[in-house]
Amino acid sequence: MITLNLPTFDDVISASERIEGHAHRTPVMRSRTVDQAFGAELFFKCENLQRMGAFKFRGAFNALSKFDARQRRAGVVAFSSGNHAQAIALSASLLGMPATIVMPHDAPAIKVAATQGYGGTVVLYDRYKEDREQIGRELADKHGLTLIPPYDHPDVIAGQGTAAKELFEEEGPLDALFVSLGGGGLLAGSALSTRALAPACKLYGVEPEAGNDGQQSFRSGSIVHIETPKTIADGAQTQHLGSYTFPIIRRDVDDVLTVTDAQLVACMAFFAERMKLVVEPTGCLGFAAAREMKSQLRGQRIGVLLSGGNVDLQRFCALLA
Amino acid sequence: MITLNLPTFDDVISASERIEGHAHRTPVMRSRTVDQAFGAELFFKCENLQRMGAFKFRGAFNALSKFDARQRRAGVVAFSSGNHAQAIALSASLLGMPATIVMPHDAPAIKVAATQGYGGTVVLYDRYKEDREQIGRELADKHGLTLIPPYDHPDVIAGQGTAAKELFEEEGPLDALFVSLGGGGLLAGSALSTRALAPACKLYGVEPEAGNDGQQSFRSGSIVHIETPKTIADGAQTQHLGSYTFPIIRRDVDDVLTVTDAQLVACMAFFAERMKLVVEPTGCLGFAAAREMKSQLRGQRIGVLLSGGNVDLQRFCALLA
Repeated sequence: MITLNLPTFDDVISASERIEGHAHRTPVMRSRTVDQAFGAELFFKCENLQRMGAFKFRGAFNALSKFDARQRRAGVVAFSSGNHAQAIALSASLLGMPATIVMPHDAPAIKVAATQGYGGTVVLYDRYKEDREQIGRELADKHGLTLIPPYDHPDVIAGQGTAAKELFEEEGPLDALFVSLGGGGLLAGSALSTRALAPACKLYGVEPEAGNDGQQSFRSGSIVHIETPKTIADGAQTQHLGSYTFPIIRRDVDDVLTVTDAQLVACMAFFAERMKLVVEPTGCLGFAAAREMKSQLRGQRIGVLLSGGNVDLQRFCALLA
Repeated sequence: MITLNLPTFDDVISASERIEGHAHRTPVMRSRTVDQAFGAELFFKCENLQRMGAFKFRGAFNALSKFDARQRRAGVVAFSSGNHAQAIALSASLLGMPATIVMPHDAPAIKVAATQGYGGTVVLYDRYKEDREQIGRELADKHGLTLIPPYDHPDVIAGQGTAAKELFEEEGPLDALFVSLGGGGLLAGSALSTRALAPACKLYGVEPEAGNDGQQSFRSGSIVHIETPKTIADGAQTQHLGSYTFPIIRRDVDDVLTVTDAQLVACMAFFAERMKLVVEPTGCLGFAAAREMKSQLRGQRIGVLLSGGNVDLQRFCALLA
């Protein structure tokens, strides 16, 4: 049996020191309309307003900050078609190191361009014929690059935990916190902060219904693998939790909930119309679940992590049409 | 000759005391992308995140707060199909007084519903056959209501000035400030705060090119009336400046600039994609003009008032398509 050294809240504290002045301390937004509808107080932590548009910057910058001189010279490699790619490319650029991002050949041109815009070198692969993990590892071996995975890494988890840490520091202990769940980096990091700063707070991970591997894993006690799920929540299309994220989630989270794509669209429309915020589908997971549990939340103080805002406008409008 | 008692910065200070705890102190947002593109520091005062979604709440609440007991009992009347209607309805509701809003019979159902949702009584009129000002005045006379116009009123102007006051208080003196210009309530109020708190700051009003009555008035020295202009900036479709707003603008503003609808759409897309903010077309006027003047603004500290975010999603998406 392999024993992993799981990250702790001390690692979150160290991460928050490393990212200070680099990551935004994102605002916590309120809505009187929401509070009235819930008969409760809701606190929205706006990671859609984070640099590069998602919480992913926190974990990526934290992980890259810990590289030694040799690692920095050689640079980082990552595989992602989404927010992790941009987070790694931007963090590497800020820290003055090269970044190679392995992306599928049919990734949206806008995402390839954004990653290149942050200074990353993009390597395309055929997602139907090639294995991106293998390509990433080969690049790492051949050129001495350090591979930073999107969620299953202690430094990534510790970095993601800084968002919930800021929320509790500013608003005090909450009664419940709702967090988007894909591979579990944000949820596991949030769990470390929650158990340290608000031990009595109920902590919920929220997945798309079509991709409820996290819920199955949480309830069964071992990591369940699924096919890539069909959902508009592209940040939560992961097939399984990680070897670091799962034990933390299993230990510290109160439950894993699911919502439908239709519920996510309704939340996107609400955020745009009433709060004037663009939130990507994955970023709506937490609030969608909170709305479903509304009657149980009366009188409570509730945190919701809006994990990101990276949805291109054509897609945004197509979803809302 | 009639001499008007123009509002002063002391009135803005009193207004800020009246609205405190009722209006949001809206956040000032930054964007590294924008700062890099400009080679300057830009400060976006987010009145799209104000209550009811626009700066109009400040002036309406200030004006209604000054009503005496008799006025409060009888209530307020206003004519508007836009943000002023909602601002008056919400303010009246918060202050426990009745509000009657005169709206065109073909106003979007969503705006009628929003006004009613804030507790306002809506009176519809035929915009092709009837005169809304006359209807408003008749209602005022018959029922003893107090008419609060959308911009040409000292208390409304003083209230609108609190947004720029907050911006200067938080960010210190700026080199330039760009403000949306319709009837001039926001611009005149901003002028009072600018001349008191940052006397050397260049102050620009920005209009849609199709409705440049303000520019004509500013440059000619007397109020120019135009037909209702065709522009997507529905908050700036006013036909003329007011008797209170014009002399302040003429005295305190450095210039009035114009931008095209296409420039407004480009800014809306930018705010949504890069800053994750929904800003209505009228709210984009200031930034659109700043972009045109970019080369002259290098190295400066620049304020931009985002005046509102009330655009329904169908229209938002149609404009961006």
